[in-house]
Amino acid sequence: MKDKVVLAFSGGLDTSYCVKYLKEEKGLEVYSVLVNTGGFSEEELKEVEERAYSLGVKEHTTLDETAYYYQSCIKYLIFGNVLKNGTYPLSVSAERVTQAIAVARHAQQVGASFVAHGSTGAGNDQVRFDMIFQMMIPDVEILTPIRDNRLSREEEIEFLKKYGVEYDYKKAQYSINKGIWGTSVGGKETLTSHLPLPEEAYPTQLTKQEPERVSLHFEKGELVGLNNKTYASPVEAIQALQELAGPFAIGRDIHVGDTIIGIKGRVGFEAAAPLIIIKAHHTLEKHVLTKWQLYWKDQLSAWYGNWLHEGQILDPTMRNIEAFLQDTQQNVTGKVDVLLAPYRFQVEGIESGHDLMSSKFGSYGEMNNTWSGEDVKGFSKIFGNQSVMYHKINGSTLK
Amino acid sequence: MKDKVVLAFSGGLDTSYCVKYLKEEKGLEVYSVLVNTGGFSEEELKEVEERAYSLGVKEHTTLDETAYYYQSCIKYLIFGNVLKNGTYPLSVSAERVTQAIAVARHAQQVGASFVAHGSTGAGNDQVRFDMIFQMMIPDVEILTPIRDNRLSREEEIEFLKKYGVEYDYKKAQYSINKGIWGTSVGGKETLTSHLPLPEEAYPTQLTKQEPERVSLHFEKGELVGLNNKTYASPVEAIQALQELAGPFAIGRDIHVGDTIIGIKGRVGFEAAAPLIIIKAHHTLEKHVLTKWQLYWKDQLSAWYGNWLHEGQILDPTMRNIEAFLQDTQQNVTGKVDVLLAPYRFQVEGIESGHDLMSSKFGSYGEMNNTWSGEDVKGFSKIFGNQSVMYHKINGSTLK
Amino acid sequence: MKDKVVLAFSGGLDTSYCVKYLKEEKGLEVYSVLVNTGGFSEEELKEVEERAYSLGVKEHTTLDETAYYYQSCIKYLIFGNVLKNGTYPLSVSAERVTQAIAVARHAQQVGASFVAHGSTGAGNDQVRFDMIFQMMIPDVEILTPIRDNRLSREEEIEFLKKYGVEYDYKKAQYSINKGIWGTSVGGKETLTSHLPLPEEAYPTQLTKQEPERVSLHFEKGELVGLNNKTYASPVEAIQALQELAGPFAIGRDIHVGDTIIGIKGRVGFEAAAPLIIIKAHHTLEKHVLTKWQLYWKDQLSAWYGNWLHEGQILDPTMRNIEAFLQDTQQNVTGKVDVLLAPYRFQVEGIESGHDLMSSKFGSYGEMNNTWSGEDVKGFSKIFGNQSVMYHKINGSTLK
Amino acid sequence: MKDKVVLAFSGGLDTSYCVKYLKEEKGLEVYSVLVNTGGFSEEELKEVEERAYSLGVKEHTTLDETAYYYQSCIKYLIFGNVLKNGTYPLSVSAERVTQAIAVARHAQQVGASFVAHGSTGAGNDQVRFDMIFQMMIPDVEILTPIRDNRLSREEEIEFLKKYGVEYDYKKAQYSINKGIWGTSVGGKETLTSHLPLPEEAYPTQLTKQEPERVSLHFEKGELVGLNNKTYASPVEAIQALQELAGPFAIGRDIHVGDTIIGIKGRVGFEAAAPLIIIKAHHTLEKHVLTKWQLYWKDQLSAWYGNWLHEGQILDPTMRNIEAFLQDTQQNVTGKVDVLLAPYRFQVEGIESGHDLMSSKFGSYGEMNNTWSGEDVKGFSKIFGNQSVMYHKINGSTLK
Repeated sequence: MKDKVVLAFSGGLDTSYCVKYLKEEKGLEVYSVLVNTGGFSEEELKEVEERAYSLGVKEHTTLDETAYYYQSCIKYLIFGNVLKNGTYPLSVSAERVTQAIAVARHAQQVGASFVAHGSTGAGNDQVRFDMIFQMMIPDVEILTPIRDNRLSREEEIEFLKKYGVEYDYKKAQYSINKGIWGTSVGGKETLTSHLPLPEEAYPTQLTKQEPERVSLHFEKGELVGLNNKTYASPVEAIQALQELAGPFAIGRDIHVGDTIIGIKGRVGFEAAAPLIIIKAHHTLEKHVLTKWQLYWKDQLSAWYGNWLHEGQILDPTMRNIEAFLQDTQQNVTGKVDVLLAPYRFQVEGIESGHDLMSSKFGSYGEMNNTWSGEDVKGFSKIFGNQSVMYHKINGSTLK
Repeated sequence: MKDKVVLAFSGGLDTSYCVKYLKEEKGLEVYSVLVNTGGFSEEELKEVEERAYSLGVKEHTTLDETAYYYQSCIKYLIFGNVLKNGTYPLSVSAERVTQAIAVARHAQQVGASFVAHGSTGAGNDQVRFDMIFQMMIPDVEILTPIRDNRLSREEEIEFLKKYGVEYDYKKAQYSINKGIWGTSVGGKETLTSHLPLPEEAYPTQLTKQEPERVSLHFEKGELVGLNNKTYASPVEAIQALQELAGPFAIGRDIHVGDTIIGIKGRVGFEAAAPLIIIKAHHTLEKHVLTKWQLYWKDQLSAWYGNWLHEGQILDPTMRNIEAFLQDTQQNVTGKVDVLLAPYRFQVEGIESGHDLMSSKFGSYGEMNNTWSGEDVKGFSKIFGNQSVMYHKINGSTLK
Repeated sequence: MKDKVVLAFSGGLDTSYCVKYLKEEKGLEVYSVLVNTGGFSEEELKEVEERAYSLGVKEHTTLDETAYYYQSCIKYLIFGNVLKNGTYPLSVSAERVTQAIAVARHAQQVGASFVAHGSTGAGNDQVRFDMIFQMMIPDVEILTPIRDNRLSREEEIEFLKKYGVEYDYKKAQYSINKGIWGTSVGGKETLTSHLPLPEEAYPTQLTKQEPERVSLHFEKGELVGLNNKTYASPVEAIQALQELAGPFAIGRDIHVGDTIIGIKGRVGFEAAAPLIIIKAHHTLEKHVLTKWQLYWKDQLSAWYGNWLHEGQILDPTMRNIEAFLQDTQQNVTGKVDVLLAPYRFQVEGIESGHDLMSSKFGSYGEMNNTWSGEDVKGFSKIFGNQSVMYHKINGSTLK
Repeated sequence: MKDKVVLAFSGGLDTSYCVKYLKEEKGLEVYSVLVNTGGFSEEELKEVEERAYSLGVKEHTTLDETAYYYQSCIKYLIFGNVLKNGTYPLSVSAERVTQAIAVARHAQQVGASFVAHGSTGAGNDQVRFDMIFQMMIPDVEILTPIRDNRLSREEEIEFLKKYGVEYDYKKAQYSINKGIWGTSVGGKETLTSHLPLPEEAYPTQLTKQEPERVSLHFEKGELVGLNNKTYASPVEAIQALQELAGPFAIGRDIHVGDTIIGIKGRVGFEAAAPLIIIKAHHTLEKHVLTKWQLYWKDQLSAWYGNWLHEGQILDPTMRNIEAFLQDTQQNVTGKVDVLLAPYRFQVEGIESGHDLMSSKFGSYGEMNNTWSGEDVKGFSKIFGNQSVMYHKINGSTLK
């Protein structure tokens, strides 16, 4: 009986090469698997499956991990308002680790001796796949034909031809990665530091001009509804918001950041729903959480987002931080109004039963009954007390 | 000889009341002072001065502190990319502490026995003034007639009338505070949690429709030029950018945040230049700083911004953090291209001799000569090593 | 019917004065309450009770809050290895907030209109009592006769005499506060910066000379046993350890730290069990937690300890951090051996089924099978990659 | 002309093997270099030099880097009170990176094509050497014969014998690394988790019984004198303190921590002077720095220490943090009294002109003139304000 290899398969040139290489040159039984995290249509999934069988896999499996992706990852990115370097919702990073986890589980179920991914030696994904496989299935050997064999595009096509596979592997001008938490766009301009992406590079084009309003309903930090309609799951609410906001070409930007391997990487993205949700959620939190809850959430989330980005989702620290984030969300319930307009959106206001800006306590700038100006006078004295002494002893800190 | 009081004077109803009250009821010689941090025109300054003398001050002084404001404060807000809760450039907070410092210095020069401010007992400013006065001029007694006497608007007008002062104190619908680091707009809708400010509430209206491009030139983190023109000082560059970008109605938002006295406060603002500068500066930094420089800058800046907001600029910790921030800027030199459009802007790219994304090292996603796929394989093994062991001993961390 | 006041009562001069003052001058019905957090013997409790009734309270209540104190507070101080400024186990701070909470609950049960504490205007405790009462029982008015009336010791005695109370209020040379989480010693030398406490100032004297060994058994971070004996509760285990280690005069030190009101305070303490438990627990954690778990625990715990110290235990951030800390403890199970000797102790080693230093993976400095020198070579290349590029572009960072 | 290799040489078996291997098998001209960071006596240095020449090096160089080590590293470890995981002064970590830097500079001066170190593939040092060489001398190829050839001790001896080198390479029971910032002791018991090191494993034995007092004089954070004697340099002061305190067997402990390569490592150490200096310095800081200076120093120092430990001293973030730390020290000037006793020491008190506990402001627990009980009452109200509102809206945060 042949040894089994589970291969993370996308249907592209690299993973097609992998199928043939693993099967023909390595003599393995190939179990291809595509992990859908919300970015594939039924049609696309079917196409990939057909492609897999046509290449000679023993079995092809499509795993729909969107719900798990949300539960184990997106949820916490929302709780933490995670935007890497204040910009990027981690669209690809988060997706890739979820896929790696699903592939590892599949390899376990299939009883594979090998697990393979088609990453090159030049990006983040190889590290994510490698590490998650090592942690989850340490006894399964990792194969990385593309990284190891370092073939050019042309050589891969040649190799496939040798085995009778001819297929029009069109090299797109941009490499696009579409998922429920945003779509990345890389290539050409993003390989420079100074050029922006042209309008046409973005998969979603501007088709709505007239501003619209949308209300987001949060319950304990999760998006449960839109415009007074409740959805069966947050995943559906996210998708419905994307449908609504995408045509405004909202949420485009270019992120430049640190890859796991130390070089700087630049990537364009469009992520209407993620950016709207995060800003709406954050605004709601600013009304219902205390100052220090907001502060510590920021500190932990920045690190959490980066560690996720670097493929370290299985570090137990991540679970601990998730416990923290979860605990902060118990009052993050309410409605957030958002104005959608071409290329931009505006959070207009919130309503929540937990709003600490409640008019019950009087408004900012107006006196109320629970404390007096005299109290604040005392507060100022004590609040500045240590610096007052410092100045008396050491003189001014100003230069 | 009468005792002298230095009064922070704006020309409004509250501080007009203070002049009369301090002079007539307290028998003090009033030295009014207006601290300009970039928000007043010559004409407005003249008007305030006349008003002061007409109220009977012994001497009125206008202090232009814009340059000092930049050097001691704005500069570091740029270095730290400080946006409170990811939103607000601290327009008013930063300005107020600078004004308090200038008033304190003036009180010292004048040899005043008293220093007065017109804050009510319900806002942030009273704490800032109180604390900075206590630290800088502990032997000068602080007087706060408005906070102490708790008069209504009508009572103040009545009091002034008694002393022959009649003046049309029009109560504006919105309270506006204009400075070089942004203009705040408070009142009406901002007293609720759910209403946005209407278009007309913003002092600067949209008057440019056609998108424009502008290049920002940074040198060691400071904005020194625009579109290849170098300015005499960063202050002038900021003002020129504001001139250019303001008519696009860029940089509007509503911030809700924690006041020093614990309640939540909501404030609208427009801050075209500050928001563009911060995002451009941050983008440049993402190219030239290392991962951990960016990380620690964020941590320290968030705290720095909040502590400044709370009036604690004289805490020596602030100087220590400034030393850190200054030290991070030595390579933050380069050009940033920005597209300006109605209500929004887009950072398009950067050029810098310190760009770590330099093509010298190959691009993200492409192999190069300094390391191999084999190296990354080794890296992944070691990078995930501890979690691999953790999983072997304790099983999966996933739920 | 008279209004009721609940008074936090210790039996000392200040709170004795309060009873008489509240009863006679204020005409209130006094409900005295003593909250025992592990520092009082049965005898002492009885004495305080008798004293209360002799002063004329309507009702005296003793609340044993030791178990609650452990569950709501000490447990997390252990989880977090909290030593303020690396030194002080927060013996008094933690105890006082627990007492304030119990008093507030009691006031609620009694249906009091007033709640009183005997703090002066010069320390931390007034802030803790004030704040916790405001948060928990905002409708109950706070009375602070000592702070308000500012009487000298002699005047208080005089006042009591007037009402026929004569009692030998001996002023001890040192003010001692004894609780399950340590005993504080203040006065005389601690009022200076340069003098240590003399041997005799410490309540527990050195009476054991011969070193002993003790094993501490932790289960999910909690101390459950000693020397293979399991206790009914962690509280009992802590007390048993104190019994064992106290006579070695272990855990003495002087802490100087920042009070809530901004001044520096210096206090001696002896806390054998707390210091041994924290170091033992920390050592166990260093074996079973990952690098980043340890890192984030430190960051959060330092802040947690300080915020507790400042009386802010009811801030919801504290609950969020507790959720984090709790989540980190699931593998903190094992045995820690400690050597006790006069004035010092030494953690000798640990045993745990979750030990990441497990010999299964080979030892530090010895090669093993899961990775090779080649892997580390690759790791070093990638791990230093960004700084390598930085140096190529910018030259050395060294001065 | 032969290619030159610079070899970090200690005189032990591994680096002796390297000399012969590089010379005979690789045909290189060997330039051996020993970097003294304060741990070698003149005699030992001479011995190593003779050994190098007897093995056939072209040139042997001894670099005394103690002063540089202090200036570039130890100084900041003191400023930051750095104890890894609250325990270990980073004795070896800090030393090794300093040595790597010196070797790299030497390789540059010599004009070497190769640089070699004798690290195995199982420890921290290989990563430190690799990374620092890559950053500082990227064009010089790194050779690591021990890591690459994986020979056993016996095979190395055999190899040397082949080339006529016979020498009694006694394998010590413990591997000792002595430097000015502490001596590490590894082997046998430290390879387990549960065994302590026996008394005799420590190089410095207890020879003083009678307690002594010593005063440490700090100036801007640096140790400049002892017992009223000023030293020519902090290095000499540190060495003098070590001389004084070492015979008390002070500063012994076992550290277990995370190695760069992910496994846990356990190491014993003795570091009398470092531990005394750090605790004394910290105590002085607690008197002269503000609360937030102490807080942020802790946060940054913990990260700084770990990043140094991981060999990343050349990351520019480290320079930025050093700028912060340096800036915090301007008032850290004063005298600290310490009691030395067998196996332990006690900081007794401090004297400083910058002491914020100055009696000028009154003592903790005693009222003074700058603020009143009324002020603190106001402070408590405002300080707890947000949580008061939180409770009114959401009920108690307690479980």
